[in-house]
Amino acid sequence: MTAVTPDSVVTDAGDTREAVHAAARRARVASRRLALLTTAEKDAALHAAADAVLAASDSVLAANAEDIEAARASGTDESLLDRLRLTPSRIDGIASGLRQVAGLPDPIGGVVRGSTLPNGLELRQLRVPLGVVGMVYEARPNVTVDAFGLALKSGNAALLRGSSSAARSNAALVTALRTALEGQGLPVDSVQLLPSADRSSVTHLIQARGLVDVVIPRGGAGLIAAVVRDATVPTIETGVGNCHVYIHAAADLEMAEKIVVNAKTRRPSVCNTAETILVDKAVADTAVPRLLEALQSHGVTVHGDLPGLVPATEEDWAEEYLTLDVAFAVVDDLDAAVEHIDRYGTGHTEAIVTSDLAAAREFTARVDAAAVMVNASTAFTDGEQFGFGAEIGISTQKLHARGPMGLPELTSTKWVVWGDGHTRPA
Amino acid sequence: MTAVTPDSVVTDAGDTREAVHAAARRARVASRRLALLTTAEKDAALHAAADAVLAASDSVLAANAEDIEAARASGTDESLLDRLRLTPSRIDGIASGLRQVAGLPDPIGGVVRGSTLPNGLELRQLRVPLGVVGMVYEARPNVTVDAFGLALKSGNAALLRGSSSAARSNAALVTALRTALEGQGLPVDSVQLLPSADRSSVTHLIQARGLVDVVIPRGGAGLIAAVVRDATVPTIETGVGNCHVYIHAAADLEMAEKIVVNAKTRRPSVCNTAETILVDKAVADTAVPRLLEALQSHGVTVHGDLPGLVPATEEDWAEEYLTLDVAFAVVDDLDAAVEHIDRYGTGHTEAIVTSDLAAAREFTARVDAAAVMVNASTAFTDGEQFGFGAEIGISTQKLHARGPMGLPELTSTKWVVWGDGHTRPA
Repeated sequence: MTAVTPDSVVTDAGDTREAVHAAARRARVASRRLALLTTAEKDAALHAAADAVLAASDSVLAANAEDIEAARASGTDESLLDRLRLTPSRIDGIASGLRQVAGLPDPIGGVVRGSTLPNGLELRQLRVPLGVVGMVYEARPNVTVDAFGLALKSGNAALLRGSSSAARSNAALVTALRTALEGQGLPVDSVQLLPSADRSSVTHLIQARGLVDVVIPRGGAGLIAAVVRDATVPTIETGVGNCHVYIHAAADLEMAEKIVVNAKTRRPSVCNTAETILVDKAVADTAVPRLLEALQSHGVTVHGDLPGLVPATEEDWAEEYLTLDVAFAVVDDLDAAVEHIDRYGTGHTEAIVTSDLAAAREFTARVDAAAVMVNASTAFTDGEQFGFGAEIGISTQKLHARGPMGLPELTSTKWVVWGDGHTRPA
Repeated sequence: MTAVTPDSVVTDAGDTREAVHAAARRARVASRRLALLTTAEKDAALHAAADAVLAASDSVLAANAEDIEAARASGTDESLLDRLRLTPSRIDGIASGLRQVAGLPDPIGGVVRGSTLPNGLELRQLRVPLGVVGMVYEARPNVTVDAFGLALKSGNAALLRGSSSAARSNAALVTALRTALEGQGLPVDSVQLLPSADRSSVTHLIQARGLVDVVIPRGGAGLIAAVVRDATVPTIETGVGNCHVYIHAAADLEMAEKIVVNAKTRRPSVCNTAETILVDKAVADTAVPRLLEALQSHGVTVHGDLPGLVPATEEDWAEEYLTLDVAFAVVDDLDAAVEHIDRYGTGHTEAIVTSDLAAAREFTARVDAAAVMVNASTAFTDGEQFGFGAEIGISTQKLHARGPMGLPELTSTKWVVWGDGHTRPA
């Protein structure tokens, strides 16, 4: 097997904490350069990176084959192997993703607000990069390149902590990216892969306060909870979605059926999939059998308190199945639906199906979530669907960013104030 | 002495953790109502609260006299006593502050972005309240009312954890505010004062994840560091300011003198005061004696490596004095000034004095801080000065808010999506 830690990748030989901190300090230095790049320089680097990834296809595929082999040997199941697997066509997709980010508008330098004060001071609030962005993520090696691309376009240095199962693939990809940066005269430490052999590198990253500006965890509920608990660096919580579809008394049931089936079965493993269906009592007689039949005919296991269903426990209402399972309940009215969602929802995406305008307005006003859909599938909560061009994750917290995060969500602001000798009166 | 814990204030009898959590749950219930109020309802409540504070003047002043007496008995120094002290005129000011907030634009419901997708889905990103906002703050009782006013106007419930030295004053003020809310038919738990007798209420507040949406600490570096270290709730770091004024080679020295004196001496105890003066080597011969004389004639003790100054240690460059002390250094050039600021600055406010446009542009582009001033005093970094009408604090972090925080910074967003049966293709 080839070495998983070429020179360009941070090793965990010796002290992991010091290795992570040293990487963060190098990232800080790189970020000072990145913050001043023009859009043209960043876009040229993104195209060069796409070329470098394609040029490195053979070594990337070889490294990936070793990751796959090691994962299979340790008994990893086939669906996880598929997420880990790279193919020539997937590598083409990764490179295209970089070119697509090059085509997106550059958020840096945009004027968010501005004014001239009565005393003549001129104020502008400008978009600036965050600085050093840490990412902690699982299996799929394409996230490595996607995160680099979005970070670079928004002027940030990226510290990447991927899964140990993808260590060789990630290292090969990062080596290609750094080669491209070097060729463009840009700091190679704009992207660094942190050691993944032990979990402590995650802890050191999320506790590198002052060295790292934000950490974005992408992964399961366990990873996100650990990051939130131990972090001293600001974090953005992403992706846990216990999403509901509420079939209101005035729902068109044909529409309801289409939306429920799409929201549950289109891609059950992603965070915007529906996990609970709530049916209004007023239409339960006709809606319940119709929806159950539609779900079951699509292979969905339905959990609930109705006859013929898998009996539901309290856990089912809170569960993010991410499988072809769904919880199913009849609720008294819109009030009861909103209360159920308040209690069990994770603030990701909630949907109502109704033809009644007042009900739609009340549901969207009262439900507290990143996205609230009227007569549309929960599956639309997605950066590409929303027209952002790319997505770094879906925030389920209320601070800084909420919902799909694109380039503007990877920025901060700076007030720039011009005067001509202004002093403030006592 | 009167009781410091009237019925309307959370007591710490029994289990402090449970008391804080119960208060947060009540705040969550209240916040659901607040989120749906119209601007007119919120403004009426703010005016009623101003009336109630004035009507309660006698009891507030009596409670404050007891706080002052207790503080004096425990040896508190006179400057802290002054911050704690309420007078009829200060109570008038507190009430006027509420009326001023009533006059500010309501941020809630504003459309941040919106689009109609090619498939016909209509997207709007709306401003919504954060929900439950925790504040941890020190001495001055006016913060209690200011925080309530800004939280209410932005549709948030406030959990206030003030200083134990102001416990009686804060309790009397919160009782008045809750009386006003009740009179308006609004939930009294929109504002609650948490127990301040032991520090653990701070810990329980900042660890009430899921119950509290954000905690904003306002106070000294020690408080802020403790909050950042122990919090699991998202926090906004505020107010630590090691601010610099750099006198560039092309500075007008008369302007430099005015700005340096204003930035250091106007109000030394606030976070936007200048703590280090950097003078470019090219003008040191004339600028150094002139600036030293101006500072010393204003009673400033100057720390530095030049003859006749108090010798500076490494700590002086990092120090936020908040007194009539300043650190003073000669630097080689703009590069060296930026590097010094990168190393020691806290990302609050940094200023350059120069007549050279290229230098001003380079300094504002390279310096990484919430506010960068050209030919203006650092004292201008302030919500009221920036025209926000009021300020909940000055953020020195990059996430969510940076610089003075007004009403929009107390909001989150929600995507509302309208369709007519849209499902997402595989």
